[in-house]
Amino acid sequence: MTLELILHEYSASGNCYKVRLTAAYLGLPLERREYDISKGETRTPAFLAAVNANGRIPVLQVGDRFIPESNAACFYLADGSRLIPSDRFDRADMLRWMFFEQYSHEPNIATMRYWLAYVGEDRLSGAQQGQMPAKRAAGEAALRLMDEHLETRLFLVGETLSLADIALYAYTHVAAEGGFSLGAFPAVVKWLEAVRAAPGHISIDSYRFTRNSC
Amino acid sequence: MTLELILHEYSASGNCYKVRLTAAYLGLPLERREYDISKGETRTPAFLAAVNANGRIPVLQVGDRFIPESNAACFYLADGSRLIPSDRFDRADMLRWMFFEQYSHEPNIATMRYWLAYVGEDRLSGAQQGQMPAKRAAGEAALRLMDEHLETRLFLVGETLSLADIALYAYTHVAAEGGFSLGAFPAVVKWLEAVRAAPGHISIDSYRFTRNSC
Repeated sequence: MTLELILHEYSASGNCYKVRLTAAYLGLPLERREYDISKGETRTPAFLAAVNANGRIPVLQVGDRFIPESNAACFYLADGSRLIPSDRFDRADMLRWMFFEQYSHEPNIATMRYWLAYVGEDRLSGAQQGQMPAKRAAGEAALRLMDEHLETRLFLVGETLSLADIALYAYTHVAAEGGFSLGAFPAVVKWLEAVRAAPGHISIDSYRFTRNSC
Repeated sequence: MTLELILHEYSASGNCYKVRLTAAYLGLPLERREYDISKGETRTPAFLAAVNANGRIPVLQVGDRFIPESNAACFYLADGSRLIPSDRFDRADMLRWMFFEQYSHEPNIATMRYWLAYVGEDRLSGAQQGQMPAKRAAGEAALRLMDEHLETRLFLVGETLSLADIALYAYTHVAAEGGFSLGAFPAVVKWLEAVRAAPGHISIDSYRFTRNSC
């Protein structure tokens, strides 16, 4: 039995795009339900009770069960596929980049993008503005680490595309919207092109393979 | 061939304890190398070049290769063992809690513990002191989410201990050192006892199964 897959998401979010992108590379059909996070639609009592008590998207619904956390949802979709290395070391190394993404990359690059491109710099709180220099420096450090690693290889882990590339592509390819210039990171730019060229790739504003059920 | 396992760590760190704890539950011998993060020993040129360009511990060395990121190191050790569910949904659900740990739990509870118990409140910068109310609130929200989830079950995923429990035990059981009271979270307290009772458990200050090579 194939369980129906429903993605609860805010489509401009890179974390949600990761899940659509994983499904697209694998040719898996996804039904989509859109929530406007700027209107608090993931903090309603109904959402908290039925979809995710943590009030966050994306959440992947598998039949009547739910998987929050973007990288866990991607792992579910890709489990047993070519997007997860069959080698034990490479499999852990893939997760290493996915945890790096959530700890060192997303909180800096995705947050800066949200603040600058969606909230607007003049509408940020004093506390948010105060955090910007540290987030900019930490985001640049994350990009530098990726750039050095990618100098000698085409993909982050092994020889082929994996979930590590998908997880880090999502916010790296729109880092300019957060005020990050990729000009200083040529290996990252080349890697973005390689991810984009992989068969099945979709852009962040494409919903091929998906169906909106809102 | 069994590859030698070396843990590069700072032993008081909960992230490092996770890796020792995983090894202990599985009876795997680990060699330990200790670094004093307060003296910058993970930011030296030698450490950055040879162990982890990200300047963080723990790093699990497997033969001559390295796995940074605590939860990825745990996954490597436990791959194929009873600590990772064989069911596809449960496996993704385990990762869901591990990503939650790194995104919503560790940056709040572990950081508060480090600031209060290791740095000292009067030695924090103004920026750090300014972040404390938000970190306290977010840490309490993470504990509340766990408490609600654990009200009806013994372990976080499925019926038995998994890496999800290990990842979240590490900083939850010392949350009081970060100023968090567990009195309001009785299901968390009961779960801590269940994790502690699992065969093979070691405390954060025990190095059974390990050998120090410093």
